[in-house]
Amino acid sequence: MTSDKIVTAAMLAIGDELLSGRTKDKNIGHLADMLTLKGIDLKEVRIVADDEAAIVAALNGLRPHYTHVFTSGGIGPTHDDITADAVSRAFGVACIHDPQAMALLGAMYERRGMEFSEARQRMARMPEGARHIPNSVSTAPGFSIGNVHVMAGVPQVFQAMLDALLPQLESGVVVKSRTVRSPFGEGDIGSPLGAVQKAHPLTNIGSYPKFDGKSFSTDLVIRGRDEALIEAAEADVRAMIEAIAATKAGG
Amino acid sequence: MTSDKIVTAAMLAIGDELLSGRTKDKNIGHLADMLTLKGIDLKEVRIVADDEAAIVAALNGLRPHYTHVFTSGGIGPTHDDITADAVSRAFGVACIHDPQAMALLGAMYERRGMEFSEARQRMARMPEGARHIPNSVSTAPGFSIGNVHVMAGVPQVFQAMLDALLPQLESGVVVKSRTVRSPFGEGDIGSPLGAVQKAHPLTNIGSYPKFDGKSFSTDLVIRGRDEALIEAAEADVRAMIEAIAATKAGG
Repeated sequence: MTSDKIVTAAMLAIGDELLSGRTKDKNIGHLADMLTLKGIDLKEVRIVADDEAAIVAALNGLRPHYTHVFTSGGIGPTHDDITADAVSRAFGVACIHDPQAMALLGAMYERRGMEFSEARQRMARMPEGARHIPNSVSTAPGFSIGNVHVMAGVPQVFQAMLDALLPQLESGVVVKSRTVRSPFGEGDIGSPLGAVQKAHPLTNIGSYPKFDGKSFSTDLVIRGRDEALIEAAEADVRAMIEAIAATKAGG
Repeated sequence: MTSDKIVTAAMLAIGDELLSGRTKDKNIGHLADMLTLKGIDLKEVRIVADDEAAIVAALNGLRPHYTHVFTSGGIGPTHDDITADAVSRAFGVACIHDPQAMALLGAMYERRGMEFSEARQRMARMPEGARHIPNSVSTAPGFSIGNVHVMAGVPQVFQAMLDALLPQLESGVVVKSRTVRSPFGEGDIGSPLGAVQKAHPLTNIGSYPKFDGKSFSTDLVIRGRDEALIEAAEADVRAMIEAIAATKAGG
């Protein structure tokens, strides 16, 4: 499904370990990459602790404003996995042991000759009426309710769930981008670049400074949804860099 | 300065490139590590685009709730560097070319025989009354206003600014942690671990699953501000793992 419309998203990453520094998040960058390819605009990310009130407040703050909200973390079998409870509370529905998920997990543990313990049964909990997000890595499903998509925090599982989920979501018009590398720092290009941006209001020109330990250079990224407009802006950016180089050579 | 009190913080990372996936953020994890060492509890992180309304809304949503708010990004010399404007608007004060910062930058560019261009002068802009955060890498200062600390997005510069800023902030009681590695997945340890957590309410026991491509293991992290309580909880966690191992060997 492809449409002309703008599809927006937010992400909520859940986990004490992300805020203590113990774990460095890898899911935000991966989701950003995948949504960009899909033409969905990621507009905002939040990270909160494994704290029910914090999760509920963040979810209810985000979900009215975006087409989709993607979450990571807190759906495992231990006492600190409280995302299913928090999402249920945010939607005002019961958190139940989903019968389909119980059957799926029960069969898997039976095949493996392992006890389907109370802790493992926790992984079947989700808001009543939620739809499964398949998990090809470790069986226990994520789930979607309304416009909220709840996935695991372990990156391999998060990625597998996202791979299963994304084809079901409506695409937006994909943002295209061109990158022009400038050997000059932002101090040199700042003023003329502002003028180029003003002349090309339907493209977004981002300036990303790099520092190699000695000097600054800049990546200039022209983003937009219309190829011809991007090309026109790119030509002006390249002309600007040549003009700066000429001035420096002349001076 | 050290105190007994709980010092809390939020972070606001600013930049289109973080949301498009073009740049993978490195500042959140670094700030989390540094604040943990300092005894400051990082409670929430948000990432927003280079969008004045979004920055103002996030800042004003965060700053009443935490001791400190740290920001990264958007204080360079180009048209998309709008953090100084947004912070000024959030505080309802004028965004000015700070005279001290103008002198500092003017002298630096004069020494280097470079033009102190209009774009470079943008880096001296900050809310009226803001205090400088020194920048040992590239001179242009960050700034603090109220409880908001505004730093660069380039990781080397962010880190240098944070190194200059943190010694000036009040420390909290440092959270200590012990990690116990469990060869068993969360499905095995979930129920008994919940009981251990209940028996040790003044410590926080986190369970962090790992997946090596074949099977799950778990890191159990006991965190708290009292060493004796952490040790008691750790002993119970270790006894729990031995009991699970004995059951498995016996079964």
